[in-house]
Amino acid sequence: MIGTGGKISKKAGLPPGTLIHIGEKKDEKTRITIIEYDESSFREREVSSLDKYSPPDDKSLMTWINIDGIHNLDVIEKTGALFNLHPLTLEDIVNTEQFPKMEDYGEYLFIVLKMLSYEDKKDSIDIEQVSLCLGSGFLISFQESGKDQIFSPIRERIRNGKGRIRKMGMDYLAYSVIDAIVDHYFSILEKLGERLETLEDKVVENPEQKIINNIHQLKRQLINVRRSIWPLREVLNIMGRGDSALITNSTHPYLRDVYDHTIRIIETIEAFRDILAGILDIYLSNISNRINAVMKVLTIIATIFMPLTFMAGIYGMNFKYMPELEWRLGYPLILFVMTAISISMLIYFRRKKWL
Amino acid sequence: MIGTGGKISKKAGLPPGTLIHIGEKKDEKTRITIIEYDESSFREREVSSLDKYSPPDDKSLMTWINIDGIHNLDVIEKTGALFNLHPLTLEDIVNTEQFPKMEDYGEYLFIVLKMLSYEDKKDSIDIEQVSLCLGSGFLISFQESGKDQIFSPIRERIRNGKGRIRKMGMDYLAYSVIDAIVDHYFSILEKLGERLETLEDKVVENPEQKIINNIHQLKRQLINVRRSIWPLREVLNIMGRGDSALITNSTHPYLRDVYDHTIRIIETIEAFRDILAGILDIYLSNISNRINAVMKVLTIIATIFMPLTFMAGIYGMNFKYMPELEWRLGYPLILFVMTAISISMLIYFRRKKWL
Amino acid sequence: MIGTGGKISKKAGLPPGTLIHIGEKKDEKTRITIIEYDESSFREREVSSLDKYSPPDDKSLMTWINIDGIHNLDVIEKTGALFNLHPLTLEDIVNTEQFPKMEDYGEYLFIVLKMLSYEDKKDSIDIEQVSLCLGSGFLISFQESGKDQIFSPIRERIRNGKGRIRKMGMDYLAYSVIDAIVDHYFSILEKLGERLETLEDKVVENPEQKIINNIHQLKRQLINVRRSIWPLREVLNIMGRGDSALITNSTHPYLRDVYDHTIRIIETIEAFRDILAGILDIYLSNISNRINAVMKVLTIIATIFMPLTFMAGIYGMNFKYMPELEWRLGYPLILFVMTAISISMLIYFRRKKWL
Amino acid sequence: MIGTGGKISKKAGLPPGTLIHIGEKKDEKTRITIIEYDESSFREREVSSLDKYSPPDDKSLMTWINIDGIHNLDVIEKTGALFNLHPLTLEDIVNTEQFPKMEDYGEYLFIVLKMLSYEDKKDSIDIEQVSLCLGSGFLISFQESGKDQIFSPIRERIRNGKGRIRKMGMDYLAYSVIDAIVDHYFSILEKLGERLETLEDKVVENPEQKIINNIHQLKRQLINVRRSIWPLREVLNIMGRGDSALITNSTHPYLRDVYDHTIRIIETIEAFRDILAGILDIYLSNISNRINAVMKVLTIIATIFMPLTFMAGIYGMNFKYMPELEWRLGYPLILFVMTAISISMLIYFRRKKWL
Amino acid sequence: MIGTGGKISKKAGLPPGTLIHIGEKKDEKTRITIIEYDESSFREREVSSLDKYSPPDDKSLMTWINIDGIHNLDVIEKTGALFNLHPLTLEDIVNTEQFPKMEDYGEYLFIVLKMLSYEDKKDSIDIEQVSLCLGSGFLISFQESGKDQIFSPIRERIRNGKGRIRKMGMDYLAYSVIDAIVDHYFSILEKLGERLETLEDKVVENPEQKIINNIHQLKRQLINVRRSIWPLREVLNIMGRGDSALITNSTHPYLRDVYDHTIRIIETIEAFRDILAGILDIYLSNISNRINAVMKVLTIIATIFMPLTFMAGIYGMNFKYMPELEWRLGYPLILFVMTAISISMLIYFRRKKWL
Repeated sequence: MIGTGGKISKKAGLPPGTLIHIGEKKDEKTRITIIEYDESSFREREVSSLDKYSPPDDKSLMTWINIDGIHNLDVIEKTGALFNLHPLTLEDIVNTEQFPKMEDYGEYLFIVLKMLSYEDKKDSIDIEQVSLCLGSGFLISFQESGKDQIFSPIRERIRNGKGRIRKMGMDYLAYSVIDAIVDHYFSILEKLGERLETLEDKVVENPEQKIINNIHQLKRQLINVRRSIWPLREVLNIMGRGDSALITNSTHPYLRDVYDHTIRIIETIEAFRDILAGILDIYLSNISNRINAVMKVLTIIATIFMPLTFMAGIYGMNFKYMPELEWRLGYPLILFVMTAISISMLIYFRRKKWL
Repeated sequence: MIGTGGKISKKAGLPPGTLIHIGEKKDEKTRITIIEYDESSFREREVSSLDKYSPPDDKSLMTWINIDGIHNLDVIEKTGALFNLHPLTLEDIVNTEQFPKMEDYGEYLFIVLKMLSYEDKKDSIDIEQVSLCLGSGFLISFQESGKDQIFSPIRERIRNGKGRIRKMGMDYLAYSVIDAIVDHYFSILEKLGERLETLEDKVVENPEQKIINNIHQLKRQLINVRRSIWPLREVLNIMGRGDSALITNSTHPYLRDVYDHTIRIIETIEAFRDILAGILDIYLSNISNRINAVMKVLTIIATIFMPLTFMAGIYGMNFKYMPELEWRLGYPLILFVMTAISISMLIYFRRKKWL
Repeated sequence: MIGTGGKISKKAGLPPGTLIHIGEKKDEKTRITIIEYDESSFREREVSSLDKYSPPDDKSLMTWINIDGIHNLDVIEKTGALFNLHPLTLEDIVNTEQFPKMEDYGEYLFIVLKMLSYEDKKDSIDIEQVSLCLGSGFLISFQESGKDQIFSPIRERIRNGKGRIRKMGMDYLAYSVIDAIVDHYFSILEKLGERLETLEDKVVENPEQKIINNIHQLKRQLINVRRSIWPLREVLNIMGRGDSALITNSTHPYLRDVYDHTIRIIETIEAFRDILAGILDIYLSNISNRINAVMKVLTIIATIFMPLTFMAGIYGMNFKYMPELEWRLGYPLILFVMTAISISMLIYFRRKKWL
Repeated sequence: MIGTGGKISKKAGLPPGTLIHIGEKKDEKTRITIIEYDESSFREREVSSLDKYSPPDDKSLMTWINIDGIHNLDVIEKTGALFNLHPLTLEDIVNTEQFPKMEDYGEYLFIVLKMLSYEDKKDSIDIEQVSLCLGSGFLISFQESGKDQIFSPIRERIRNGKGRIRKMGMDYLAYSVIDAIVDHYFSILEKLGERLETLEDKVVENPEQKIINNIHQLKRQLINVRRSIWPLREVLNIMGRGDSALITNSTHPYLRDVYDHTIRIIETIEAFRDILAGILDIYLSNISNRINAVMKVLTIIATIFMPLTFMAGIYGMNFKYMPELEWRLGYPLILFVMTAISISMLIYFRRKKWL
Repeated sequence: MIGTGGKISKKAGLPPGTLIHIGEKKDEKTRITIIEYDESSFREREVSSLDKYSPPDDKSLMTWINIDGIHNLDVIEKTGALFNLHPLTLEDIVNTEQFPKMEDYGEYLFIVLKMLSYEDKKDSIDIEQVSLCLGSGFLISFQESGKDQIFSPIRERIRNGKGRIRKMGMDYLAYSVIDAIVDHYFSILEKLGERLETLEDKVVENPEQKIINNIHQLKRQLINVRRSIWPLREVLNIMGRGDSALITNSTHPYLRDVYDHTIRIIETIEAFRDILAGILDIYLSNISNRINAVMKVLTIIATIFMPLTFMAGIYGMNFKYMPELEWRLGYPLILFVMTAISISMLIYFRRKKWL
């Protein structure tokens, strides 16, 4: 459940650069979408292998290759060969246990991100790795599964030629992809925020045993989400600073903008954690309060009935010489005394605010 | 309630720079106030649209445009066109989920702040976004609602021509606006400080169940206030350092002054959080103490009456040969013994400080 | 009690640089002490206004003006005019809600400190603001009240001409003033340390309810003291680094020395907080232990008397055929059995270390 | 168990550079493996002493000497003499209480790492020190025991001449060794993660007393693992930055890659600690819940039987004039009343969700 | 007990540089040991005053003066005059409330350290201040008491001329002194580690009341030890970086080595604090567990005997018409029913794992 760590151990001892797919095989088929465009032209293809593909001769053409299904090592290797990617890049693409990071290989930038999606049924968050290779004239994106919805609006914008997307370079496209992923984080936060509020209401009204498990589960999810997003902040900070020639000045404001979003997301997660800690405090104090309430019931019962039972016990004794027993009004009298004691006890407890 | 996050998700997938108002529509009407002034002249207008407006030809004239009601996207777009604002600036103005930040677009500085106001009725804090565009010769301020009181004294000072405000440049006006907002934070802290003290008194005197909810609510408000103010510190630090040509040297001491105020506010919030944590400790220890007190009552009652009831039980037995039952003084004797036991128990409990 | 925040709100909206005294009026009268000296000469005057004062013509003469009672705005303004102080400086002098800070206005350094004094009667710490303007040839010190004892030894040293003080410049005098204030912090720590040790002894011996309030009160005082001293560290660090021409090299070791003291004070406050947290842990665990102890008494009583009462109940039943009731030794036998049960219970509890 | 500290005290007072083996003697025999290779040739020897060894004349040949069993001080000293190692290097090699560190001695880099292995039987983690001396043309690795499995795959790759390993320099070999050790950490994390999940399941289902001890034990192991890995981050960061001539540019991406792994491991450990803290919270709240549950049983029993016993006591009194006792239906009536009371009590408790 | 703070207040108001001994007078006599040596010669003297001493004319000779008993202000002043020490240096030497620090006075480095020793009898840690003045050709060390054992091995090495000590300069000697002190810290950690493990064992087996006091005491000791060592890290870091001409390059590796030791010590202290926090958690959860255990005993007793006593009460009633009372087997029957109830209760509790 914590992810990082586990499965990589099967790699220990192998030479670095060995391609081994680490992670669940999230989709059976590998789908490759190739989009070639410039300001005036546009061409889109979907293929199942890159065997017949070669990068376009026209250097002004921009190419976006999106690969869904990284478990297909042949495709990955072929891509690596076509675009001259470093072996470590390929290794990181197929190993889905990476953290977000950016590496500058000179001829291309290699960027790893995490795409989050909320599984409503299981109340769990699905984490998928997206890797980007941003080179001069090409962007290659790698996804684990073909859950392609997030990138569709971008493709649509390229098709329509609306907005800046076809007028600006590959770096703007890379930004658009990152922006789409980061914007999607907000909907995850929304879901988590809702669950937090539900939990908050529940813990005040009806603090059951299982709430502690819900708190713990939500805490774990926040830890996982935070781990997936936290390093992205640094990645975007470096990209926005503009040390690489692959990122042009006109894209910097956009990258700073998505950087701001990341900061906001991280701050929100921190606030969630603080609030979750507060919910735990309420829960724990509620348990103590309920112990207290139970104790009060017990004490009230005992305080009323123990003296009464004792009095009844007195007149249940078999002494020969107990004058009260002979009194005509002994019995009503004792009943009256007992009632008086009970009532004064109840008044006392009411004054103490126990009732 | 946590704010950031929620509503932005409706934007996911749209091209960056798309104008969508995110946030509550806090006011129906959009009001635009245009003030043009220099050291000797002054002109003030209130209009409802910028269609007929054009920036003054006289470049020495200073223009302050205040726009209340950012949900009117036409006005925002028109302003953007008139003053040549970047699409991302416009997007941030209408998206009220921003954190405080400053961005240098070269020709103008874009500053986002949060204006806080305390809703006495609901004991809640209302957060509104104020955006500033500080250019050469103009300042444009955008507010969510027309709750204009905070800026009135500034306008008054411009009208009267008192003090430095008309002698100094646009940057001093921007400073004045920021200073007005930041000074207002102190009154929020005052309110929160009062609630903290009330809570502190209550928790010592009468620790009820609902106090934990009050503590939690106040904690959440502190988290929200902190999130609204914290990034402002960095914004003012950068502005006061003087990298931008739009901010003159003579304004730097003023910006450093308001920076100091921000530091002070943040430190106070931190102190509030520490004290709130202390109040929680008192609350929790008080619950335990009350459990203890209840337990003591129960134990005292049980310790006194259980032995007595047992004794009464002894002489309630029906054995044929129980010599004490025949004694003339059996009954008074047993009553005396019981009283003696009760009294010595009470003395014992008093010594143990249970009574 | 938390200070910062509250009163400043009456300033919101006023133009910056407006003089408004914020804080308690700690003393009725304003006292002004003017000391002019060089290595060979010395002159001391006490006046009540600066109307007839003008800075000495002899530029080699050093002037120390000490002003007690900053609520007298006329004096502050007059001083500002005489020594050409920035309006923001004057504003900060009369607003006692500042944090320690240093500002370099070129012609003079403006330094704000907090003077602490322990009010034995109320077990509270009184915080007063001291502002210093260190210029070329002059030092002006502003205090809230005329509680002048802290500066007397310095004045005495100037009068006597003993030590370095008259041989060195204004910066050494400023250092001496700061050093006097910082050295006084140690006596505050001493008091707090004593209260901490008292609390520590009490919580072990006799953990009463009110100790939690004492812990909380001490914690608040530590928070306040820390807030008053913490920023001073940075102030002294900057001063000791020697960027300003107003501070000569020969004074740097002295400033580094008082910087070290500040570090030590802050570290001690941190250690106090850690220890206070430990005392709270002891207190809370003691409450639980006492609950445990009370529970044990109850359980012992119940465990002994419930079975006995039950046995007595058995032989209190009115069945016609109960052979034991007829036995000659029935009654002594049952008493013996009851005694045996009680004793074995007590042995059992002693083994369990409950007695 | 905490390690560092303990045994080094036997060194106090000795001149620095004195060779004393500190740590357990993990293996009896000292094994020395010498591998000499270049792109085309390869030679491997296993010897038991270095007396007859001399570094190869052919400067293009690369030499890897692996020494298992650092308690053999003769071998260490001989190695130091052969390769001109600094006395402090030798001291650190034989003192196994080091933290990971890198020291640049100009002619060689000295690197200390910790090799972790999980002892399944004892559920404990075994920590072993590995020291590397990376010089021009040689790499010497020192291990405590001969548990050599971790390095075997590297040796295998050199033998086969597959991959880059024989084409690249000594720095790549050093990287390979570090990478093998770091990759092995993941399997440790896997084990710890499994234990964490087991603990998590247990604490929810069946919170026994001994779980707190398991939590504490796991916490201690995380502290130890963290201490062994944390400083490695900085070591790899410095190595990857490339200040030393001994590390070539082509190795930097590889070092940055293993640096990323270290970051990931540390982040995972932090996440484990957070989750462990959550498990403790569950455990503590479960204890309170169980107290609460026990209290409820007690209160239900007492609340039902105390009034009933009291009623029985009433009719057990021996007053002469108690009309009910004479009623024909007195007994069935009282039984009915008692049953009614019991049932209404049970209904009341069910409503309160105590049953 | 917290040390810093307390006694220094008697200095407040005095001119800086005034010599006042602050701290306990740890030894009556002042002992001065003078060692003069170079690679070939060696001379050692013990004197009681420096009146007749003058530094050697031969500038190549190295002089180490060790002064035990800093309360003798005459000796300190004399030393200051002989070696031209700054007044603040002398003030710091006799004020034992310093933190570790290094100050570069140009002609000499002034270093303050804390020497720790464990008092086995009182289970307390004794902290002593050691000050070093490292100049060109001389090292002066100041100790509070004459507990000289720590420096003896260094003196021995100088006498014997073994190792590097006489071949290297004054800086190496200073290093040796620091190294001796730092190495001694490990034995303190060893003692603390042992106490920690004892506490850990105790808290699991037999969690008594006084353990919380032991935990608190150990925590305080860790705070004090940490405060004494923490700043040393920075001191050694600066010394090892080599900005001062008084420290030669050949000594840098040694200083870095002792710096590494300091890091290790600090990390160990942090680990100790973490583990101590874990022990506190165990202790607190054990109290709760014991409350739980006591509650269970009470509940079992009450649950068994309350119904039985009630049944006995029923047949103790004096109704005229109670058919069961007449039954021949009424009494055995009721005893049988009671036994059956008890047994089924016990089975129920065993199932619930309360027994």
